[in-house]
Amino acid sequence: MKTVLIKEDILSRNNERAKEVRDVLRREHIYYINVMSSPGAGKTTLLTGLINALKEEFRIGVIEADIDSDTDALAMEHATGVKTIQMHTGGACHITCQMSMEALEALGLEGLDVVFLENIGNLVCPAEFDTGSNMNLVLLSVPEGDDKPLKYPLMFEVASAVAVTKTDVAPIFDFDRETAIKNVRFRNPQAPVFFTAAAKNEGVKTLAEFLRGEIKKTIQ
Amino acid sequence: MKTVLIKEDILSRNNERAKEVRDVLRREHIYYINVMSSPGAGKTTLLTGLINALKEEFRIGVIEADIDSDTDALAMEHATGVKTIQMHTGGACHITCQMSMEALEALGLEGLDVVFLENIGNLVCPAEFDTGSNMNLVLLSVPEGDDKPLKYPLMFEVASAVAVTKTDVAPIFDFDRETAIKNVRFRNPQAPVFFTAAAKNEGVKTLAEFLRGEIKKTIQ
Repeated sequence: MKTVLIKEDILSRNNERAKEVRDVLRREHIYYINVMSSPGAGKTTLLTGLINALKEEFRIGVIEADIDSDTDALAMEHATGVKTIQMHTGGACHITCQMSMEALEALGLEGLDVVFLENIGNLVCPAEFDTGSNMNLVLLSVPEGDDKPLKYPLMFEVASAVAVTKTDVAPIFDFDRETAIKNVRFRNPQAPVFFTAAAKNEGVKTLAEFLRGEIKKTIQ
Repeated sequence: MKTVLIKEDILSRNNERAKEVRDVLRREHIYYINVMSSPGAGKTTLLTGLINALKEEFRIGVIEADIDSDTDALAMEHATGVKTIQMHTGGACHITCQMSMEALEALGLEGLDVVFLENIGNLVCPAEFDTGSNMNLVLLSVPEGDDKPLKYPLMFEVASAVAVTKTDVAPIFDFDRETAIKNVRFRNPQAPVFFTAAAKNEGVKTLAEFLRGEIKKTIQ
């Protein structure tokens, strides 16, 4: 059972570090949103829509985490004009709180109100590591299927809010809204569920309004 | 750098164990196919089509790995009639060779020619752990996007073959076949790339023929 103890040790040190990150963010009046999903669930597209809806009111920064490639950071900066940095994890499947803190420092917190972290596309490991964020926004894309909360429990348990994405293609996939809500509820009775098709700008405003409320409650 | 050493140690022990699994499979004349992809990329649907195309010729068994839920094993057994077991990983994001061996034993190797392992939906961690398989079949679904080989290097590096899935929805997604092939090639110059839409039974026969050839080369 050595590996289990090592893992517990790593996770407990990570949780300690998360408290320190939250202290820094509180002092700097910054709201930090950790965005998690499977690969290709539409994190970058949804974030682009949300940032464009919120950037008049808040000064926003973005951390794009990937194992390799800079495509997301380039796309994000081009589409929103907000300060964006690319973090490469060197093969790692998740963001530890240490990595999260280093990325926040590299981004530079001065003059920012809100930071979005686009986590590694992975429905398993990132859920285990508290990044120090104020909110975990978890995406579930229609093409993945409405059964994913049953198969990936922890990700939906740690969600502060769930955004179903790519709802415009629901008619050609076997995805049922009521089943999706029921399966999210099975793992998480509290998290609000939003339905979005960011490529068509559908549902983005409602989710942005929710974020706006949560941000204002915390930093103002 | 402690964590890195621990990881290397775990991976090196896993590789040792993989050789033992391959010895057992060789002795039993069994071909073992490890199927990996993101969550919801269509592993179960493609496998159903492949198994129905191959089950007259080979005696097939299936291991369905999930963190939780039995939906895949039930669907697989219902749709193909072949011997299927469900493995729960208890939160783990990948299948170690030890877990792979235990699942093969639980399935029972006697009277089988081919075993499919449907791995955890995860484009990162399962790539690091050799399961002792003869082949790694990696799926890339059209809704995920043609850029995924750039972002998830190791998964495409360890692929013996790549199956692009859900090609029937390509017209409504921003997915280019040539770009997908180029990006796979960037990580892996050898692996053949197949295009499939298993829900419409397109491309399944060609991939099944390829598997048939590989299986016969090894076990007959």
